[in-house]
Amino acid sequence: MINNIWLDRIIHMALEEDLGHMDLTTDAIVDPETRGKASLLAREKLVLAGLPVFSRVFTFLSSKIELEYYFEDGHLVPEGERICFLSGPISAIMKAERTALNFLQRMSGIATLTRRYVDKAGSDRVKVLDTRKTVPGLRVLDKYAVRMGGGFNHRFGLFDGILIKDNHIVAAGSIAKAVALARENAPHTIKVEVEVEDLAGVEEAIQAGADVILLDNMPPDAIRNAVNLARRRVIMEASGGINLNNIEEIAQTGVDLIAVGAITHSAPAVDVSLELIA
Amino acid sequence: MINNIWLDRIIHMALEEDLGHMDLTTDAIVDPETRGKASLLAREKLVLAGLPVFSRVFTFLSSKIELEYYFEDGHLVPEGERICFLSGPISAIMKAERTALNFLQRMSGIATLTRRYVDKAGSDRVKVLDTRKTVPGLRVLDKYAVRMGGGFNHRFGLFDGILIKDNHIVAAGSIAKAVALARENAPHTIKVEVEVEDLAGVEEAIQAGADVILLDNMPPDAIRNAVNLARRRVIMEASGGINLNNIEEIAQTGVDLIAVGAITHSAPAVDVSLELIA
Amino acid sequence: MINNIWLDRIIHMALEEDLGHMDLTTDAIVDPETRGKASLLAREKLVLAGLPVFSRVFTFLSSKIELEYYFEDGHLVPEGERICFLSGPISAIMKAERTALNFLQRMSGIATLTRRYVDKAGSDRVKVLDTRKTVPGLRVLDKYAVRMGGGFNHRFGLFDGILIKDNHIVAAGSIAKAVALARENAPHTIKVEVEVEDLAGVEEAIQAGADVILLDNMPPDAIRNAVNLARRRVIMEASGGINLNNIEEIAQTGVDLIAVGAITHSAPAVDVSLELIA
Amino acid sequence: MINNIWLDRIIHMALEEDLGHMDLTTDAIVDPETRGKASLLAREKLVLAGLPVFSRVFTFLSSKIELEYYFEDGHLVPEGERICFLSGPISAIMKAERTALNFLQRMSGIATLTRRYVDKAGSDRVKVLDTRKTVPGLRVLDKYAVRMGGGFNHRFGLFDGILIKDNHIVAAGSIAKAVALARENAPHTIKVEVEVEDLAGVEEAIQAGADVILLDNMPPDAIRNAVNLARRRVIMEASGGINLNNIEEIAQTGVDLIAVGAITHSAPAVDVSLELIA
Amino acid sequence: MINNIWLDRIIHMALEEDLGHMDLTTDAIVDPETRGKASLLAREKLVLAGLPVFSRVFTFLSSKIELEYYFEDGHLVPEGERICFLSGPISAIMKAERTALNFLQRMSGIATLTRRYVDKAGSDRVKVLDTRKTVPGLRVLDKYAVRMGGGFNHRFGLFDGILIKDNHIVAAGSIAKAVALARENAPHTIKVEVEVEDLAGVEEAIQAGADVILLDNMPPDAIRNAVNLARRRVIMEASGGINLNNIEEIAQTGVDLIAVGAITHSAPAVDVSLELIA
Amino acid sequence: MINNIWLDRIIHMALEEDLGHMDLTTDAIVDPETRGKASLLAREKLVLAGLPVFSRVFTFLSSKIELEYYFEDGHLVPEGERICFLSGPISAIMKAERTALNFLQRMSGIATLTRRYVDKAGSDRVKVLDTRKTVPGLRVLDKYAVRMGGGFNHRFGLFDGILIKDNHIVAAGSIAKAVALARENAPHTIKVEVEVEDLAGVEEAIQAGADVILLDNMPPDAIRNAVNLARRRVIMEASGGINLNNIEEIAQTGVDLIAVGAITHSAPAVDVSLELIA
Repeated sequence: MINNIWLDRIIHMALEEDLGHMDLTTDAIVDPETRGKASLLAREKLVLAGLPVFSRVFTFLSSKIELEYYFEDGHLVPEGERICFLSGPISAIMKAERTALNFLQRMSGIATLTRRYVDKAGSDRVKVLDTRKTVPGLRVLDKYAVRMGGGFNHRFGLFDGILIKDNHIVAAGSIAKAVALARENAPHTIKVEVEVEDLAGVEEAIQAGADVILLDNMPPDAIRNAVNLARRRVIMEASGGINLNNIEEIAQTGVDLIAVGAITHSAPAVDVSLELIA
Repeated sequence: MINNIWLDRIIHMALEEDLGHMDLTTDAIVDPETRGKASLLAREKLVLAGLPVFSRVFTFLSSKIELEYYFEDGHLVPEGERICFLSGPISAIMKAERTALNFLQRMSGIATLTRRYVDKAGSDRVKVLDTRKTVPGLRVLDKYAVRMGGGFNHRFGLFDGILIKDNHIVAAGSIAKAVALARENAPHTIKVEVEVEDLAGVEEAIQAGADVILLDNMPPDAIRNAVNLARRRVIMEASGGINLNNIEEIAQTGVDLIAVGAITHSAPAVDVSLELIA
Repeated sequence: MINNIWLDRIIHMALEEDLGHMDLTTDAIVDPETRGKASLLAREKLVLAGLPVFSRVFTFLSSKIELEYYFEDGHLVPEGERICFLSGPISAIMKAERTALNFLQRMSGIATLTRRYVDKAGSDRVKVLDTRKTVPGLRVLDKYAVRMGGGFNHRFGLFDGILIKDNHIVAAGSIAKAVALARENAPHTIKVEVEVEDLAGVEEAIQAGADVILLDNMPPDAIRNAVNLARRRVIMEASGGINLNNIEEIAQTGVDLIAVGAITHSAPAVDVSLELIA
Repeated sequence: MINNIWLDRIIHMALEEDLGHMDLTTDAIVDPETRGKASLLAREKLVLAGLPVFSRVFTFLSSKIELEYYFEDGHLVPEGERICFLSGPISAIMKAERTALNFLQRMSGIATLTRRYVDKAGSDRVKVLDTRKTVPGLRVLDKYAVRMGGGFNHRFGLFDGILIKDNHIVAAGSIAKAVALARENAPHTIKVEVEVEDLAGVEEAIQAGADVILLDNMPPDAIRNAVNLARRRVIMEASGGINLNNIEEIAQTGVDLIAVGAITHSAPAVDVSLELIA
Repeated sequence: MINNIWLDRIIHMALEEDLGHMDLTTDAIVDPETRGKASLLAREKLVLAGLPVFSRVFTFLSSKIELEYYFEDGHLVPEGERICFLSGPISAIMKAERTALNFLQRMSGIATLTRRYVDKAGSDRVKVLDTRKTVPGLRVLDKYAVRMGGGFNHRFGLFDGILIKDNHIVAAGSIAKAVALARENAPHTIKVEVEVEDLAGVEEAIQAGADVILLDNMPPDAIRNAVNLARRRVIMEASGGINLNNIEEIAQTGVDLIAVGAITHSAPAVDVSLELIA
Repeated sequence: MINNIWLDRIIHMALEEDLGHMDLTTDAIVDPETRGKASLLAREKLVLAGLPVFSRVFTFLSSKIELEYYFEDGHLVPEGERICFLSGPISAIMKAERTALNFLQRMSGIATLTRRYVDKAGSDRVKVLDTRKTVPGLRVLDKYAVRMGGGFNHRFGLFDGILIKDNHIVAAGSIAKAVALARENAPHTIKVEVEVEDLAGVEEAIQAGADVILLDNMPPDAIRNAVNLARRRVIMEASGGINLNNIEEIAQTGVDLIAVGAITHSAPAVDVSLELIA
């Protein structure tokens, strides 16, 4: 589900960065023909994300590396479990190791944190969304990891969704005018979402015919009132200042979507390691 | 200090990812000729890193955007302060905003966490180092941010440093043989570092003529003994399991370098925002 | 409105293709310092599209070329009129000429044909849409040209719109299941469009909650019935087999959108030429 | 006969453009493991061109897609015939479909129109040539398609042929001086062609030792006189204003080559479709 | 005369290779704001080639570097002379120095050796040609340098010239058939050259209508006889085994062209250096 | 040992340059299905380097080409010997031939000249080093070839070694200050090398704690004195003006390393050829 053309470009860049012209240590010491085995281990409980990336890094280095999986992306892996098993030229495995782990530890970190938010929200009705606050250049991986953690994706970028913010409204003159301009010019395949900060804004956006309303940094009571105003005719999204402590309360307002920047911009890496078997 | 050729490639990729073929919202609503102003604000106390990246993203979108700075990279910015001031075409500023902030919030996040580790270590004699546990493709930015936070860089990749790990030792047969092979084949400009797990390893590495010894996951007492063994003839680096709670104790062992993966792989983004002035 | 990063890549490719290592004729004969002037002329009546591309090709060859415009993109240019005036190094103008014209003659060809379809449709209420039947790699230019001709854009690619076709329906088991899967997995910013071939399909799609229904190759009467079924609650799009002879009749069915592949895949180039003034 | 390095770059660009980060519809609905079959059908009589490009697009998406051909490039395919048969993962086939068809419908459109010009010219002695009026970036495909339609290629770009036009003559001072400069500086492997507009020009070009003379927009009588002047010592090419109505008369003047811009810049796409077999 | 798009790609690659992520020495020691001056000196007598490349390398590093020239490409520079003068940020000059010199010393080395061959040939009538034996990826620079040394270029690559070698003749069945196939399929803008090894081959090639005949590794007497056979109706090129000792004798045979691989594949670098003025 | 990502980029560039859009001669004459055989022959005694590059060029053109080797990189090949044997589609072999040979003749030229320097130096204790005076963009191949010839590599670029030159010293104020700045800022994995021109400089560099001292253009006696001063505590490198006549004398001074620019910047190509077997 990750476009291979994009994936290969990202992996190329990562391997160029780490390998450069050669691996001074391994090329000096390890015979390129020697074969070996390795296990990928979860050093903590985690939600797995990134196996297709992880494996592709190794096969870039050598087509002779083979991988066998014990878990799939989206699975919860208990601490200490073996995630996958590798065999092949030991020097190629050693050269790819750090880059492959760097992808997996970040992506699983995002999936694991997303799962915590989803669990805390505690409702099947509400969706936890990501934002565009991702690591530049790796958004396709960040957003894939969010899905693996049970979250959902907001628009990918500026090109596949309309989100009218305060400055757009100022530029247009009013919410109504902004919505009309967006509706007139954008493909009919794209919904129109408007960001508002209070109930007056919600009313104005509903009048203007917005498909989605983003409630920016509004307290739970105000969100509940907004949801009531919308009466399920408009999709309601809460965003801004949401954390593990308040997401449950936000979820209970009846809002449809809760966007959380932290799941991509502040997810700590999970602890995974590759153990070579002599 | 960041090679512009690398920087431009990274920014290209980031803008392609976010902008795609067009900004549906802004292109529909905002006149490309309208000019405006904006302030970059620190929403929390932070160590600044990434201004050259931040500004280059904007100038990619329009050569007419101008920036004025109130702080420099490496500075500590108090909560609420204005970091810089922008003026230029409002539509270009809006298109670049998220990408520029994504760089800055990550880089300043790394710098800010690095500074906390440096302060905790509490000694001018010991250097806090980064590792290769960085976001794939953005290592040049991650390592720059570490320097801005008062940390120092370990080798950049596999090509500019020798680090003999347990699997290299197994492949060579002994630490002595591994060091000899590395010394023979690698450029004379590169030092030879050996990773060991106990005092026996330290002694063997010193005998083998290692320039640097990495003490992997050793407790403070063992580190202190290792430092005494080395008697300042070999550079000693502690690594593995170091956090804000134990770094001071590690620093007091007399070790020269302390490597911390978390400063790059698990630094939360800082909270910065761009406020447009109508 | 065309992302410069994409535009520059396209122009690079075009100039590499035409210029290769050098212009054998011009480099042998024309002094690179000699300056001259040229006029871009419309050899037939046309709707203009592509000036930003046209001018950027010249400035790639030499930053000393200046252009002055008498018309803008989207304007109707009468036969024989001067569209713009160029001055600068004559050798650079000659090297860029063919590539610049190739872009402009194709883009204006698309805009001109689009305008004919829009005029024939004869109604402000209905929008003439493009399709994904564009020249591979130049879609961003083709779709821009459609807008300049008074048409509107359908989704850009597979990533920014949902269009459930017969094979998707077969794979899902029913329209209802396909719509539910799409709604569950895709970003909430994207509408769900379903392609049907008869009135039974229309009813099923409405029941399934489709946002848009594409009526594939249906005759005018069936389209009118479909529109009545939808009662303006669902956006209705006609597509397939539409040409300059039948578009007016289709437009009068009350359908909202009419998609025409020919405006991009079969638009003849317009006749424009560059006349150098000695 | 199409350089794979160029072809892959073009296909990459086309798939990036259409697929972006993912196929929202197919990824949401179709199991990536499900296999299926499809037929490529000619919806009208056409001259086939582009099969190697068509098939490579599919194999980019999945190495498991297999193709079986019933016709080859250059063949005349009757309306309704099956051109080829595909089998493999249905989701990959659906993702590649539009891009693959966009290449084939354009290339076969060029081949089909070229064949009409060749047939109309009605002589084995005269060659129908293309020009540089191709779609930017895809010239290698356009020119291949011309060959498949029975036409021949003029120079590829500015780097592999010399064509002295009026502005070159003005810059040099005379045809004789321009030819001498070109002959002196260009590789000896390249012929010198001069563009003229009347018989005086023809005489001057023959005197100057031109290898080829391009007769620009000259009427049939003048072309016949020019051919007589040249007495088969110089290759004579007619160009400008040639269409299906006048090409036969032009061919009968005895000219060697007839260049037609329309076969690449204004060829309508042929109607081909991919029918999936459930 | 060097296409900037190609040139920039080459310089990018060279600077990436040498600078990598940073210049460890200069970034540690030299203030990026300090300005300085430098002179480019010829340490031996040389024919200059490469100034546009040399200067572009510096301006890539900093737009503030300015250059003033005392010689132009193609000039003979006496030992000890100052070729150009630079001023600007000293750190940028130091970072670019080696890469810029590497281009210039190679290109001037080629120009200088070419000039020696031209001078030895001792005749204005004969042209000294290069071959395709160039450094991979830098052919555009190598061939430019040959021209600066007074030599001429053979075809650039396989795409802009026809050279029928023995294996082509074997494949076709005879020289006559090979020439006919080439003439039929290749653009009319390209001449047909045939490589032969003896007088029988020369006669056969003349009969077949070759435009150019390459005499491969033939002794001076045989070349003279071949030239007589051709009687100036066919261009005659000598190639193979030509060096500074025998080129004069070859030139006196009356042959039109002499191709020398050594001028590009074995030209020693000239000695140039950059002296910074504190 | 050559990073494949870098290698593929270089080969891409080389094949694009030589093949362009097509091979006019071979595509016109040779049936792409015909298979054939060829031998790679050494026309002179040489040290082999570049087989992995040579073979990869062929397999880029066709995966059906197979190679069998009689020698390995680093081997001394006598004049007239067959180096390897190829079989596969003859047209693909002919298209790749020149590019593959261009790589091999240059790389083996460097290895062969390096071996001569190593043999002349006549001591196992001293290492012959390359410099950064390589062909721009191909440094990874040049340095690999040096190793195959028995030489050793100096730093790869500005990013993986510290070399303090006179201008750095001027900028810092003194050798001591320059060394301190470099030591403070650069990774601890990198040694500090200082370039000096006389014995005073040697003493100052030793005092400053340099790890390596480069003796620039010093006569043998001075080098011997410098070596005595250093008493094996510092690595001593001689550089500048070293050639085949004086390297033995330099080697006998006791210096550790001798750097020779000529082995990369002025190595003549070796004579290798590909003979096709009909």
